Amino acid sequence: METVERLIRSTQELLWERGYVGTSPKAIQRAADAGQGSMYHHFSGKAQLARAAIERSGEELREAAEEQFASPGTATERITHYLERDREVLRGCRIGRLTADPDVMADPTLRAPVDETFRWLRGRLAEVVAEGKRTGEYPATIDPDQTAATIAAVLQGGYVLARAANSDEPFELAVQGLITLLQEASA
Amino acid sequence: METVERLIRSTQELLWERGYVGTSPKAIQRAADAGQGSMYHHFSGKAQLARAAIERSGEELREAAEEQFASPGTATERITHYLERDREVLRGCRIGRLTADPDVMADPTLRAPVDETFRWLRGRLAEVVAEGKRTGEYPATIDPDQTAATIAAVLQGGYVLARAANSDEPFELAVQGLITLLQEASA
Repeated sequence: METVERLIRSTQELLWERGYVGTSPKAIQRAADAGQGSMYHHFSGKAQLARAAIERSGEELREAAEEQFASPGTATERITHYLERDREVLRGCRIGRLTADPDVMADPTLRAPVDETFRWLRGRLAEVVAEGKRTGEYPATIDPDQTAATIAAVLQGGYVLARAANSDEPFELAVQGLITLLQEASA
Repeated sequence: METVERLIRSTQELLWERGYVGTSPKAIQRAADAGQGSMYHHFSGKAQLARAAIERSGEELREAAEEQFASPGTATERITHYLERDREVLRGCRIGRLTADPDVMADPTLRAPVDETFRWLRGRLAEVVAEGKRTGEYPATIDPDQTAATIAAVLQGGYVLARAANSDEPFELAVQGLITLLQEASA
């Protein structure tokens, strides 16, 4: 694998595991098996490398989500597939966890790919919900933007509850509770 | 204010703002206007002080939540009051954000008060939902433990989405989307 690619992937892993504040350039170089000179040849520093890593993680999140959104089935079925997809629950969300990182939130160029990823996700979920309204699956009271935010929030909050409990259980409970509410709304 | 109290409150604020990894003993001493000797006279170190601060934040979260849970009204009304309570959305949850902190998650004595707080919260929410089932407000399909986890997750995930967008809006959307789903379930 090319050095640039190794640097990006190692930074993705370290940001997921340790966050931005907890990730040092030294740790990145060690994980990527790259020298300091090589890292600074390709990137101006930790911030630029982190930006590339967050963008990559955002792309991966979008690709994985799109698989379920574009699958056949009713809106509730597609949302259910998305919610029930296999996830490394206890590792949390690679993108969402960065919102707890004050240095990421304070830097507009680092926050931008986090913001864009969640805007895309909420937008796509809103489209699926809107389709469910058009086909008569959901009643007029359901607002696509609101419901989309609720769905995205249940996943992000589910990770928080799971990590707090050191168990997947609260995540699974939160997801199943949401699926039941969506089914009740479409009943 | 007593030194111990100043140390705990300063640590609560720093953990909220910077997280555990990002909070140094020096920063705590500065914020508390306490000397190093004074801090180590009262606490064995950053971990013990953080434990006291997380416990305090957990107590405050429980007290604030109980106000809405114990208020009069239907289950949906009480949950709505809880969800719509004034919150410093962009600061996020003082307890929830700690789940992104690898050193807090790796230390059982630091994770314990985080875990206990969310267990209590989910338990109390499940009681309110169960009351709503007993009074016929919610149908038999609604599982109190699942719905409680969904409600807690929407708040925690709402914070994540709001911080990502640097705006309260996604939090408000997620909350209103959940309230509509709860109303649909009880209709």
